[in-house]
Amino acid sequence: MKRILMTIAYDGTNYSGWQKQKDPNIHTVEGVFEEACRQLFRQEVTCIGASRTDAGVHAMGQRAVVDVETTIPAERVPLAIRSFLPKDVVVQAAEEVALDFHPRYDCVKKTYRYAVLNAEFPNPLVRQVSEFVGKPLDVERMQKAAQGFIGTHDFKAFCATGSTVKSTVRTIFDCWVKKSGAFIEIFVTGDGFLYNMVRILAGTLIAVGEGKIPADGIANLIEGKDRKKAGPTAEPQGLTLMTIEYE
Amino acid sequence: MKRILMTIAYDGTNYSGWQKQKDPNIHTVEGVFEEACRQLFRQEVTCIGASRTDAGVHAMGQRAVVDVETTIPAERVPLAIRSFLPKDVVVQAAEEVALDFHPRYDCVKKTYRYAVLNAEFPNPLVRQVSEFVGKPLDVERMQKAAQGFIGTHDFKAFCATGSTVKSTVRTIFDCWVKKSGAFIEIFVTGDGFLYNMVRILAGTLIAVGEGKIPADGIANLIEGKDRKKAGPTAEPQGLTLMTIEYE
Repeated sequence: MKRILMTIAYDGTNYSGWQKQKDPNIHTVEGVFEEACRQLFRQEVTCIGASRTDAGVHAMGQRAVVDVETTIPAERVPLAIRSFLPKDVVVQAAEEVALDFHPRYDCVKKTYRYAVLNAEFPNPLVRQVSEFVGKPLDVERMQKAAQGFIGTHDFKAFCATGSTVKSTVRTIFDCWVKKSGAFIEIFVTGDGFLYNMVRILAGTLIAVGEGKIPADGIANLIEGKDRKKAGPTAEPQGLTLMTIEYE
Repeated sequence: MKRILMTIAYDGTNYSGWQKQKDPNIHTVEGVFEEACRQLFRQEVTCIGASRTDAGVHAMGQRAVVDVETTIPAERVPLAIRSFLPKDVVVQAAEEVALDFHPRYDCVKKTYRYAVLNAEFPNPLVRQVSEFVGKPLDVERMQKAAQGFIGTHDFKAFCATGSTVKSTVRTIFDCWVKKSGAFIEIFVTGDGFLYNMVRILAGTLIAVGEGKIPADGIANLIEGKDRKKAGPTAEPQGLTLMTIEYE
């Protein structure tokens, strides 16, 4: 038995998120990926994914393991599995890992990108990978505010209400905002994220850019632990899971 | 009566090209655009488009005119028409022009971009706006070869066979190749293009990058006037009509 760790990129537009649902009619990336593994390795497989991305959210570096009996060397898997996958899901790398390696528990760092198109009119060519904001955003204010997220904090104000997680404390290692032409990209790296946390963080930074929240107001929002005071949940299609790092 | 010239951006993925077909069940950008004009201006309209992009080809700067009786100022049309258009078609600008202005005949310059993703594995997030080439391309060779297209030439070798155009002579003002990360972008500006010409030009430059056609071989291909000697027709989704210029 081998445990193979794969790096998976996908366009989440046509999926109800990563995680397989009980209802087999719900189209998920995990479901499509497991089926491709079943066909490639010609055996039943169950995968463990690193991150449960929501409906419409994309990934460049999702990670998942499968346990298989196979003679296919791990490094040949990305090419071999391609013909069993639809074009919106691509395995970009594979390596053999220890049988006790766990893609979620062993993760030390995840990085997400949130993309905003800040222009007078929408651009149809990027509508599925960005949120459109028509009013000019103040990027410098957003850059200043982003630093307020860095550190170990109770992020209860940045968690979707109704979530039943034990602890809402997380560590943000870095958070920065970059302007690239008409795009504003928000990057955030942390040890883990609460439900909808990156989208609420992005929505809050957009509100800062619009002048609705002061650039030095993030600390207060965190301390207040009140979801209603933070910004709105930004749209799913702007979000991409970029990398997941292990020790 | 006013003639309004609009600049239109669209994602061509889900369309059978720009031009309206006799069969009303064929989904075209022109058909969708005309219908939106009909709803906005509450009258029958017929549009004249500048460029007949193929199925799957995109545009950032398509141009089209409509003749309408309206009190809506032209500059307000882009915002006003938005709710009548699907998300993959966006009017980005509008201006009133003379009634004898013709978007196709009066055009003096068009620029297209052809995007190639040159990486080990496909990227699902850009699969609908680029052609994937897995083998490393020699960009310097492509840059050198691109210059061979510049000038006034008989481009018969770069025209889809079966085309019934009167003259295959066109003027290319500029043609250049730019590397941006994993992307290779081919830009070409000319007074007009033959059927499939930009895609054959792109396919030929890709063949140059692969070493299949010499970097100084473009002049010979043009002189030979033989479609079979030029490169293959590159895939439609890599092509975007960028700008159309008038005097």
